[in-house]
Amino acid sequence: MPELFNVRTPPDAWRLFLEHFRPQVRTERIPTAQALDRILAEQLTAPQDLPSFRRSTVDGYAVNAADTYGATPGLPAFLTVVGEVPMGQAATLELGLGQAALVHTGGMIPEGANAVVMVENTQQVDEASIEVMKAVAEGENVIQIGEDVRAGEPVLPPGKQLRPQDLGGLLALGITEVSVALPPRVAILSTGDEVIPPEQTPGPGQVRDINSYTLAALAKRAGGEPIPFGIIPDQREALEAAVARAAAQADVVVLSAGSSVSYRDMSAEVINGLGRPGVLVHGVSVRPGKPTILAVCDGRPVFGLPGNPVSAMVIFDLFITPTIRALLGTDSPPKQQIQARLARNVASVTGREDYVQVRLEERDGDLWAVPVFGKSNLIYTLIHADGTIQIPLDSGGVREGAWVTVFLH
Amino acid sequence: MPELFNVRTPPDAWRLFLEHFRPQVRTERIPTAQALDRILAEQLTAPQDLPSFRRSTVDGYAVNAADTYGATPGLPAFLTVVGEVPMGQAATLELGLGQAALVHTGGMIPEGANAVVMVENTQQVDEASIEVMKAVAEGENVIQIGEDVRAGEPVLPPGKQLRPQDLGGLLALGITEVSVALPPRVAILSTGDEVIPPEQTPGPGQVRDINSYTLAALAKRAGGEPIPFGIIPDQREALEAAVARAAAQADVVVLSAGSSVSYRDMSAEVINGLGRPGVLVHGVSVRPGKPTILAVCDGRPVFGLPGNPVSAMVIFDLFITPTIRALLGTDSPPKQQIQARLARNVASVTGREDYVQVRLEERDGDLWAVPVFGKSNLIYTLIHADGTIQIPLDSGGVREGAWVTVFLH
Repeated sequence: MPELFNVRTPPDAWRLFLEHFRPQVRTERIPTAQALDRILAEQLTAPQDLPSFRRSTVDGYAVNAADTYGATPGLPAFLTVVGEVPMGQAATLELGLGQAALVHTGGMIPEGANAVVMVENTQQVDEASIEVMKAVAEGENVIQIGEDVRAGEPVLPPGKQLRPQDLGGLLALGITEVSVALPPRVAILSTGDEVIPPEQTPGPGQVRDINSYTLAALAKRAGGEPIPFGIIPDQREALEAAVARAAAQADVVVLSAGSSVSYRDMSAEVINGLGRPGVLVHGVSVRPGKPTILAVCDGRPVFGLPGNPVSAMVIFDLFITPTIRALLGTDSPPKQQIQARLARNVASVTGREDYVQVRLEERDGDLWAVPVFGKSNLIYTLIHADGTIQIPLDSGGVREGAWVTVFLH
Repeated sequence: MPELFNVRTPPDAWRLFLEHFRPQVRTERIPTAQALDRILAEQLTAPQDLPSFRRSTVDGYAVNAADTYGATPGLPAFLTVVGEVPMGQAATLELGLGQAALVHTGGMIPEGANAVVMVENTQQVDEASIEVMKAVAEGENVIQIGEDVRAGEPVLPPGKQLRPQDLGGLLALGITEVSVALPPRVAILSTGDEVIPPEQTPGPGQVRDINSYTLAALAKRAGGEPIPFGIIPDQREALEAAVARAAAQADVVVLSAGSSVSYRDMSAEVINGLGRPGVLVHGVSVRPGKPTILAVCDGRPVFGLPGNPVSAMVIFDLFITPTIRALLGTDSPPKQQIQARLARNVASVTGREDYVQVRLEERDGDLWAVPVFGKSNLIYTLIHADGTIQIPLDSGGVREGAWVTVFLH
C-alpha cells in the first residue's frame, strides 16, 4: 500500500496554515489584581506621573544642597530644623536658607529643599538644630516627579503576559482594570475503539485514554481553556456529530486520532466536511508526528494529531500552542528554554525535523542533555524527560558535545 | 545614628532560619486529571504492567518472524492471512506456521506471532494470502508487555511538580486520584501611613499600594495561596492585631514594612511578640533588600520585607519562595533560568550579594543580559527587566562578556 501523505516540512505547513487562519482575539475587562499571567489586549499609557511628588529615598533631613557644601565631620554645616514631614501627608513646610526638615523614607520633599542628608551623616545638636557631616549634591537621595514613569508614556503593550511586577506597575498608576484576552476554547476529542476512560479497567486489546488529559493540560499551559469531549467511537457518524458539536463550541478543535491509516483518512474526510477550505496539510516531515492534519474550516483551526502520546505532545507544541498564542494576541512562547550540551551523537535524516526527548544532568559544571530514547507510543519516555530538543531539518544530526536548546516540559 | 542591623549573609541567614523552621506538608486527595502543576505528596508505583498486552506499533501483519527470514521484493515470503485483529478486542486468533493476521497500530498481537510486517512491505495476493517483501526480526514493530513501565516500578516521587505527561502516565495506569500538597496560605500585610488602596486617588505625600499585589502574585506563582490583609496603619496596636490574625489564618506571614528605621524596629518587636524564638535575622547583606527580617514564631515563618517594591520582590524570591516550596514538600525552583552574556561590567562590594535587573537582547547569535539600573523604589525598573542576575558575595563584580545565569521573571 503506498504512502498516501503529501508530506510538508513544518515551516511550509505552518505557512500554508497561516494563509487561511486569521486569529480574532476575544477580550474581557477584569480587575488588574486578578490579571496575573493573562495576556494584555490593549496598549496602556501612564495617566499620571509616578511618583507624583518628590520623595526621599532615605531617612534623614531635607535640605538645600548648597547649605551643605564643604561639610565634613571636622567642619560640619549647622542647620536649623524647622519641623518634620509626616508620612502620607503634604509637606506644608517651606525651607529657607540654613534650614532643614526631618523626612522619612518615601516621605515628601518640602518646598525649598532639593536634597536629603542621610540621618547617619548628621548629629543632633539640640531640639532645633543639627550638624551635617557630609555634603550632598542637588537631587541626592530624592526621587523626582515622573522619575519612575511619566504621564503619557506607554507602559505596557498589547500581547504582554502580565507578571507580578506588571500588576504592581499598573496599580501604582491607578489602572485597576485591564482588557485581557479571553482564553481560547480548545475542544479535545479522543478517538479509537481501543480507548477507554482511565477509571475503567482495560480488557485485552484496550488501553486507557491518555491524550484527552495530556492535551488538555498542554492547552491550559498555553493559555487556553480545554473543553473535553471524551472518547468518540471509530465510526463516521459519531465522529461527524462530535466534531460538529466541538466546532460550534470551541475556537480550536483538536482530534487525537485513531492511528491506523483508514482511520486517519476518515478523520480528514470528516474535517473536510466541516467547512472551507478544510484540510490544508496531511502529513508533516517530523519525527515523531508525521501523520498530522492541519485544517481551517470556515475560519476555525482544526487539527488531527497522531494517537501516540509522544507524537501528540510534540505536534501540539509545534502547531497548536502557537495557534492558541495567536488567538491570545501574542507570539511570546510560554515554554522556557535552557542551553545544554548534547551527551551523545544524535543522527537524523535529511528532509525531516526530529524532536528528541532529553533528561538534564549536571556534570563538571556544565548542563548536559541526555537523550531518552523510546518509541513514541511510550508515555514514560516523556515522564523520564525534562525537555525536548529539535534536530533541524536537513542537519543530518547533532554531534556529542554541541550546545543545544532544550525546551523544558 | 548608628547602623542597628546585625547583618548576615544570605546563606547564613537561611541556615539560621532553617534551624528553627520545620516545614509540615499539608495534603489533599484530588482527581489526577485536575492535578496539573500541583506537587505530588506520595510515592507512586505502577499497579500493573503498561502495556498489559503486546501491541503493534504499525499497521501491518502479525507474523512469526522466522516465516519472513530472507524475504525480498524479488523473493517474497508467502503467508496465509487467517484473519484480522479488531481494535479494542482480544486477539482470539492463534497463528500457526506460515500464517499472518491483519493488525492495526495499537492492536493486540495474537498468540503465535512475535513481530509485525509493515503493510507497506507486503503485497496482497488474494483474499487470504500476502507476499512479504522484507524480513522482520523477532520483536520488530511490537511493544512488549511492561515495556513502557513494569508493575511495581516507582513512577513518580513525592515532591514532583506534575506536568501534562505525568498526568497522562498516571491515568494510563488507572491512578485517577493523587495526594498532593495543599498550597501554603501566605498572609500579606502592607504597612505605611502613606499607602492607600490602588482605586483611590493619592493626595500629596500618598502612594498607592503595590506590594500587596506583587507579593500576592509571587506567592501564587510559587504555589502558595495568598491571603490579602490589606494596608495596616503605622500604629503598634493595629499592627499587633493584624499580625496575630494573620498568624492564626496562614502558614506564612509576610509583612511589607514601612521603610523608616523606627518602623522597622516596631515590626521586629511586634514579630517577637508573636511567639518563640521570634526574630532570627534582622538585616541581610543583599542589595537591594538589606532591611529584611527573618523570624520563626511558634513554628510559623514570619518575614519583614523592605517597603521598596524592587527590594521586596528580590527578598521574596530569595527567602519566601523557598519557604513556600518547602511547605509544598519540594525544593524544585519554580523560576526558569537562562544563560546570557553580561553586556557591561557590574561592580559589587565585598561581603554583599547584589541582585541586578537585566533586559535580554539577542546580538550576533548570543543572548546578552543588559543591566537595567534604577533605584529600588522604582517599580518600572522591574517592568523593563526580563530577569535578575546575582553578583555573588565577595566576587567584587562581574566583567562584561562573562556568562551569567538569568532568573527569568
